[in-house]
Amino acid sequence: MNITLEQAEKIIEVAKEKSISLNTKMNISVVDTGANLLAFVRMDGAWLGSADISIKKAKTARFFDMNTGAIGELSQPGGPLFNIEHSNNGLISFPGGVPIKNKKGEIIGAIGVSGSSVENDHAVALAGSLAL
Amino acid sequence: MNITLEQAEKIIEVAKEKSISLNTKMNISVVDTGANLLAFVRMDGAWLGSADISIKKAKTARFFDMNTGAIGELSQPGGPLFNIEHSNNGLISFPGGVPIKNKKGEIIGAIGVSGSSVENDHAVALAGSLAL
Amino acid sequence: MNITLEQAEKIIEVAKEKSISLNTKMNISVVDTGANLLAFVRMDGAWLGSADISIKKAKTARFFDMNTGAIGELSQPGGPLFNIEHSNNGLISFPGGVPIKNKKGEIIGAIGVSGSSVENDHAVALAGSLAL
Amino acid sequence: MNITLEQAEKIIEVAKEKSISLNTKMNISVVDTGANLLAFVRMDGAWLGSADISIKKAKTARFFDMNTGAIGELSQPGGPLFNIEHSNNGLISFPGGVPIKNKKGEIIGAIGVSGSSVENDHAVALAGSLAL
Repeated sequence: MNITLEQAEKIIEVAKEKSISLNTKMNISVVDTGANLLAFVRMDGAWLGSADISIKKAKTARFFDMNTGAIGELSQPGGPLFNIEHSNNGLISFPGGVPIKNKKGEIIGAIGVSGSSVENDHAVALAGSLAL
Repeated sequence: MNITLEQAEKIIEVAKEKSISLNTKMNISVVDTGANLLAFVRMDGAWLGSADISIKKAKTARFFDMNTGAIGELSQPGGPLFNIEHSNNGLISFPGGVPIKNKKGEIIGAIGVSGSSVENDHAVALAGSLAL
Repeated sequence: MNITLEQAEKIIEVAKEKSISLNTKMNISVVDTGANLLAFVRMDGAWLGSADISIKKAKTARFFDMNTGAIGELSQPGGPLFNIEHSNNGLISFPGGVPIKNKKGEIIGAIGVSGSSVENDHAVALAGSLAL
Repeated sequence: MNITLEQAEKIIEVAKEKSISLNTKMNISVVDTGANLLAFVRMDGAWLGSADISIKKAKTARFFDMNTGAIGELSQPGGPLFNIEHSNNGLISFPGGVPIKNKKGEIIGAIGVSGSSVENDHAVALAGSLAL
């Protein structure tokens, strides 16, 4: 099972709506089961630097099948995964990346969102991840 | 003047329709005036390796404000721009990248398409570039 | 609106004067609205390694439309943006990068300065950013 | 002996004048004896993609103490330096990079110019290299 572009577009649509409801401007990425980029949008006026971050968040969430924030808890100084961000051409380990599951609960991809506080980034990613 | 996400989404929609009419599966990228990624889609079943190529085509077309194929004619062995592809973290200099102009004729971004023959890639990019 | 080279040269001139007044030797970069390099100088005797830092500071300030030091406050261990520096081919998140605004208050680029203490780097960048 | 920023600024000024006289818009870079970037300007409206090319041309000219075009003659298929462009994070081996000498004839840096035909690029670089 892999995510389709139609599903990714639905996810992005829901994420954009959530972003607007939070009065934010986001970069939104969706990757597939292979952690390869499937769809991306940068909302008008969103930070330029958040494009790469949103892609890396989506990849990171699929690389390890967990929310990106969970990795960041382990990658702190003294933690078991300290500086894991150096791998895979750069991980992002703070909130905003969330796995995407199908109705059976199988992971079929991930969404990454960047452009506001990490709380907002996560809220938008979570909304998108639940769109299907 | 810079391209908007709404314009980019319209361009991608037209490009997807053109791709379907040619019975192809494409990766389609749109960059803005600063050559920064604005929107991207990979159609279901399209080559994974063409995602990066489509992004690089769009960037290349905006970097030099011309169709990517025009650069490739100059970058051949013995040509005046031989191996220009080594610049800018990698250019793509075969057809499939086309500048996007507004109604005044000003360049506001570029589209890059990859996933089939270069003739088809160019045809889809051209269709997208004329969508506005 | 985008910054012009004439504006960038004025900004660099003011930044150089500020640097001399502080008895420092700086690398000074200006990027445009697309975060693309527009102008750069390395003052005689300035650190070689600060050239790349000044460019990355300017890019970082434009990527997120804020002073680079504001990002560094959030990217510390335990902070919400820990290790954000791994994105965008390398951010610099300590002081010395400042957005540049036009008279309407619109961001039209950014300046990045490196070569001394972060306090001096920021003071020079700030002086440059206010030159227009 | 190393080039000074004042000398680099003089070189860039002459190169800009030559560029204007040729009705072109150029990216102009100067590197020092260590092949490290010393000064850079992108003239308004010049190609975005030529910034990196102008820097690589200047570096290439200093890396090998010869005009970049001379390397391109040797890097063709079947030539002795085929694909040397893969080294040093990317060389540019077509015309537009020229060493800079002091009055004793010692090489003190190099200039790289990109933004038009290679003939124009070289003409502007040559004019700049002779400015001292």
